[in-house]
Amino acid sequence: MDAFKDANPDRLSDMYGNGEIIESFQTKVASLLGKESALFFPSGTMAQQIALRIWSERRGIRKAAYHPLCHLEIHEENGLQELHGIESVLLGERDRLITLADVQAMGDDIGCLLLELPQREIGGQLPTYEELVAISDYCQAKGIPLHLDGARLFEVVPFYGRTEAEICRLFDSVYVSFYKGLGGVAGAILAGDTDLTEKSKVWKRRHGGDLVSLYPYILSSDYALELRRPRMGIYYEGAIELSSRLNGCSRLKTVPERPVSNMFHLHIELPLEQATEVFIKTTEQSGVGLISFLRETSETSCSTEIHIGDRYTNIPADRLEEALLLLDKLLRTAGE
Amino acid sequence: MDAFKDANPDRLSDMYGNGEIIESFQTKVASLLGKESALFFPSGTMAQQIALRIWSERRGIRKAAYHPLCHLEIHEENGLQELHGIESVLLGERDRLITLADVQAMGDDIGCLLLELPQREIGGQLPTYEELVAISDYCQAKGIPLHLDGARLFEVVPFYGRTEAEICRLFDSVYVSFYKGLGGVAGAILAGDTDLTEKSKVWKRRHGGDLVSLYPYILSSDYALELRRPRMGIYYEGAIELSSRLNGCSRLKTVPERPVSNMFHLHIELPLEQATEVFIKTTEQSGVGLISFLRETSETSCSTEIHIGDRYTNIPADRLEEALLLLDKLLRTAGE
Repeated sequence: MDAFKDANPDRLSDMYGNGEIIESFQTKVASLLGKESALFFPSGTMAQQIALRIWSERRGIRKAAYHPLCHLEIHEENGLQELHGIESVLLGERDRLITLADVQAMGDDIGCLLLELPQREIGGQLPTYEELVAISDYCQAKGIPLHLDGARLFEVVPFYGRTEAEICRLFDSVYVSFYKGLGGVAGAILAGDTDLTEKSKVWKRRHGGDLVSLYPYILSSDYALELRRPRMGIYYEGAIELSSRLNGCSRLKTVPERPVSNMFHLHIELPLEQATEVFIKTTEQSGVGLISFLRETSETSCSTEIHIGDRYTNIPADRLEEALLLLDKLLRTAGE
Repeated sequence: MDAFKDANPDRLSDMYGNGEIIESFQTKVASLLGKESALFFPSGTMAQQIALRIWSERRGIRKAAYHPLCHLEIHEENGLQELHGIESVLLGERDRLITLADVQAMGDDIGCLLLELPQREIGGQLPTYEELVAISDYCQAKGIPLHLDGARLFEVVPFYGRTEAEICRLFDSVYVSFYKGLGGVAGAILAGDTDLTEKSKVWKRRHGGDLVSLYPYILSSDYALELRRPRMGIYYEGAIELSSRLNGCSRLKTVPERPVSNMFHLHIELPLEQATEVFIKTTEQSGVGLISFLRETSETSCSTEIHIGDRYTNIPADRLEEALLLLDKLLRTAGE
């Protein structure tokens, strides 16, 4: 509700994509990302399918290349194929990043390439900036449009030590989300050249995303952006600190070992049931909840995903220390 | 903002279509419409394309029949064709309702039939209940799924003198909107059998409509439904009253002559420019704004659409009388 408490009640609602509220936010984010133009969408799923459709059509090849654990591949019920008739080409392997070599090996028969920064499903890993530049140069030389899944783009700015615009310059289009690290209610932006935006408006209407009013999402997105974008450095430092301490506990390993954003995966060398018991006891006895779920990875191991945000930075240092000591002790004695 | 002022801040957000907020509202509206199940969508465009896709697939024929001025035909940039590969079959004529004879003449090679109640683009006209029953019976006998575009369903309850559920019983699926006559922020429900809902969930995800949080739309929809559904009879009476008085003015004619919902079209036998001048003068001198736009229909005529809602019922009777007398006078002397 904080996002709305200073809202001006005389400000007019957006109407089917028009109006000051939506247009000024689009202009602001386009400028932040260093792009000519931007369009607000209710969801990233819609924004990205549409970007890939437009690029594939512009290149005349109905094939989009991306990581095997890309959001489009695992969370969208094959929308890209079912709605847009675009075939997916999976690049690289499930447990590592796409490399320049993968891109060079994929050939020219590709409508567009999508890279996700950071690659969420493998703990939020990132290529070096130099490798990104090399991939971007290669695609440009080959005429292959390069799209950025920047659902967590703001979160990687501290690691690269470059602005969002400097990173986005390597891509033809970029999608950013306002509810991941930023904590808005929902909503996404697709940014690129003006032609992309104009075509996107038509596709947004076709998808049923050109809502009569999007202002509840736009106002909360703007609020979240202003509030949390400046904190990404703090979250990143927190992720490095916490992962280092977790790696010091028995049976725990983080991926990446040293995070490159505000997130990482935590792998636990214990069967799911025993690990669950350990984390529940830790929370009950210390009052600090370190994780929110566990998923089985084998009969003897499980994992979770950790995001650093305001909640982490609000835990008093001594309480956290206590919780981690207890966790280590319980892990060491588990199954004995 | 009134929709949120009594919101419980401890109530958890919906998460990707799950959670008490979304599920309880879906159950409530399904029950109101007399259907087994219902799904909340960000937009009617998305809900209806998905309904037609599912029915066409169930029947094995990728053709949907509807009115030439159906929302899908004129406002959705051919989304149904471009995203779903479904061909449209236009039934009847642009300036009249679809009749039983039209339906009987369309043949069996149809995936589904959509009827819109009331038919908005021709002033909100309605078939008799008896004709509706006959069309429904015909479709059922032929095995043709019948879908209701009920964007303004709540608005036709007073005319038919039947509940929403009694009207919806004639249809296999129904879409209702929460921002037309009800005045919510945005949002729609698609209701039907459980199989339809389950399949709709998959398509909603594919369309990018399965947002992480839809609660701003759901809470405002629920608020608007409770507030304005009981007022539909008042709005309907208001439309009859106002249309009758407008028909008494020179150069004016309403379609329908006697409204069957809270809306009607107003046709003005004056060139657009002169009519604009008349309505501006009327508003300036009386302080009452009767219309919000005018569109040209020929070199010598124009028209507008009038919806009766809370604003109309709040105009004092003597102010309205004064405005209408002035309007009649200005219309009579226009162009002299």
